[in-house]
Amino acid sequence: MKIDKNKGITAAKGWQASGVAGGIKASGKKDLALIYSRLPAETAAAFTSNQVVAAPVTVCRELLKKEAKTQAVVVNSGNANACTGAEGIINAREMARLVKKGLNLRHGALVASTGIIGEQLPMDKIGAAISLAIEKLDVGGGRDAAEAIMTTDAFLKQAAVAVELGGTMVHIGGMAKGAGMIAPRLMPHATMIVVVTTDAVIAPKLLKKSLNSAINRSFNRATVDGNTSTNDTVLIMANGASANKKIEEEASPDYEIFQRALEELLICFAKMIVSDGEGATKLITYNIIGAATEAEAATIGISIANSILVKAAFFGEDPNWGRILVAAGMAGVSLTADKLALSIGDVALVKEGQGIDYDRPKIKNILAAPEIDVTLNLNQGKSEAVCFGCDLTYDYVKINAEYHT
Amino acid sequence: MKIDKNKGITAAKGWQASGVAGGIKASGKKDLALIYSRLPAETAAAFTSNQVVAAPVTVCRELLKKEAKTQAVVVNSGNANACTGAEGIINAREMARLVKKGLNLRHGALVASTGIIGEQLPMDKIGAAISLAIEKLDVGGGRDAAEAIMTTDAFLKQAAVAVELGGTMVHIGGMAKGAGMIAPRLMPHATMIVVVTTDAVIAPKLLKKSLNSAINRSFNRATVDGNTSTNDTVLIMANGASANKKIEEEASPDYEIFQRALEELLICFAKMIVSDGEGATKLITYNIIGAATEAEAATIGISIANSILVKAAFFGEDPNWGRILVAAGMAGVSLTADKLALSIGDVALVKEGQGIDYDRPKIKNILAAPEIDVTLNLNQGKSEAVCFGCDLTYDYVKINAEYHT
Repeated sequence: MKIDKNKGITAAKGWQASGVAGGIKASGKKDLALIYSRLPAETAAAFTSNQVVAAPVTVCRELLKKEAKTQAVVVNSGNANACTGAEGIINAREMARLVKKGLNLRHGALVASTGIIGEQLPMDKIGAAISLAIEKLDVGGGRDAAEAIMTTDAFLKQAAVAVELGGTMVHIGGMAKGAGMIAPRLMPHATMIVVVTTDAVIAPKLLKKSLNSAINRSFNRATVDGNTSTNDTVLIMANGASANKKIEEEASPDYEIFQRALEELLICFAKMIVSDGEGATKLITYNIIGAATEAEAATIGISIANSILVKAAFFGEDPNWGRILVAAGMAGVSLTADKLALSIGDVALVKEGQGIDYDRPKIKNILAAPEIDVTLNLNQGKSEAVCFGCDLTYDYVKINAEYHT
Repeated sequence: MKIDKNKGITAAKGWQASGVAGGIKASGKKDLALIYSRLPAETAAAFTSNQVVAAPVTVCRELLKKEAKTQAVVVNSGNANACTGAEGIINAREMARLVKKGLNLRHGALVASTGIIGEQLPMDKIGAAISLAIEKLDVGGGRDAAEAIMTTDAFLKQAAVAVELGGTMVHIGGMAKGAGMIAPRLMPHATMIVVVTTDAVIAPKLLKKSLNSAINRSFNRATVDGNTSTNDTVLIMANGASANKKIEEEASPDYEIFQRALEELLICFAKMIVSDGEGATKLITYNIIGAATEAEAATIGISIANSILVKAAFFGEDPNWGRILVAAGMAGVSLTADKLALSIGDVALVKEGQGIDYDRPKIKNILAAPEIDVTLNLNQGKSEAVCFGCDLTYDYVKINAEYHT
């Protein structure tokens, strides 16, 4: 299975996309993306766990309660439509309505927004941009769409994967955004928006299950600053255009292949988003092994990845194993300090909970690299989890302190 | 009730203290504190919730399982005796034994350590320092003791309070340390050590109860960087020297007065520790009001105080209400975004979940001050909690990134 970063949201059959500049962003850059399938697509979604939820999230939840299938997604950047009250809800519904009407859809359209918080959408511009985006829909439009959802992202995020299911090639592709708040008047922090399309034929409950399971091993194990957004949204839509034998059994090899491919794709996006974290200079992969359960391993990994003391140590390229052990110890998971073993790269730093002598020039080289692997063995079981984090830098403080509302 | 910061651990009757330089710190500064009461003292304690626990914490827990009364506390700085395995436990027990023997105590001695992690205590130096500290014990030794437990603290932390219980003056005094990791080879982060002495006569279970209740409203609502330490320790010892009528009933006015005084004292220490946070330039008080329960209010307050996006905004002196609302929304407490109201100082920024116009020059002045009050009204109940946090600064990153193990 090979992830192809030159393909994206239109890699799967039957999907078209476009990305246009509608004047929502003051910069004049692309700010509205449209994704469309003529064939109705089974849809699954996950949204922010934050109690402060933006209008488009509420409107998507409403739609998905009524309909299991959708045919389009519209995403604007430049304005998050968050903390906008009743008018915000009306505007989000209107975006969906304009797409449904313009494309003459049988099923509904989903909507997502990212950008400034606390301001109403410029609905005249949005309307014109949707009309333009409909005109420009194309199987080659994936890159434009991925560009149009960027806010402060330093790089465009798209990827796709193909797998063979019973002799039929099935494609899964997507686009993502999420980084930080660099530009003036942007949202309070990096909203994550991920849209995935596939041409697989898959039972709705298995599409949901595979999405949740893949999210659990990707975005739920990745952290830039421990914050959830008002607008975080992950969507997957399966239009069945590949005509594979329908994936109906969780215990089937086909489900397993599909699920793994989706998981790999979402892990790829999670790593891209963390790499693009505000001010981040390093992507750190935390392998937590020897845990009693996978969930406990993940809880410990996220606790370490969120520790600003650990993050600052990686920025300083210092092998500060004490901070890592302490962050593991405060995760709320029962562990035996005397059993802990820790390595950075292939250099062992801790055995049985105590520091050991290590090769200092070697660890210096490992810590100077832009990607660092950390392995913490709890030595209390056979489960493991992989989590992703970044470092805490002067630029993070600069970006977030010098930004002014 | 007036907190007196010129008095400390020897403010209560029958308590003596000393602080000496034993050569544990390379700097030659004071590094061993001893506190002693000839009268046996009812003792209550609280320790770090971290699963990685330093040897002195384990040894204190052992002692308090066996004995309800103690007569002395020895605290060294310069070495945390953490991640030191079986030898560390032996050394912590030996410290307690040396104090017990040297002072010829009937009851045990408690022990606490703070400083470098992962190195064994220099037991020869510790032994000599304990002998010297015993010689120097004095009712005027409180300030020396408070000085001897400092590590990277920018200022000495002591305070005391006196209350009248049925015509008898009862005193509570204490010392605290906790700040950050600035000096080379110090512990992975600021250990908090707080020792409180009193001359009150109080039933052991009420001493425990009042300590836990006061900790819940002080240290459990204060955060510098969201990290717990391997060594965090809070001790209270009541020797009964004031001879007040024993506090035996939770429903009594005497208990209420004592409990409030202890709570005020611990809140005073909590604010001192947060003010002295690594690189911090501002102390921010979060008043969470209109909550369904006090616990929910506190959970939301701590979520905001720990948000590095909120912390960076305060460093930048920016009234970024969106980040505060988002941090409230991710606390795991059910809330209604449309009901939220937020003020900084006396300037209202948010009503019914949406931003409102505010006086920009006025808020600029408020945010330029070293102490800032934030009030978030959830408008869903009558409970409230006060939490304390600081800002995230370039110096925080500098201190924690440029430190090298």
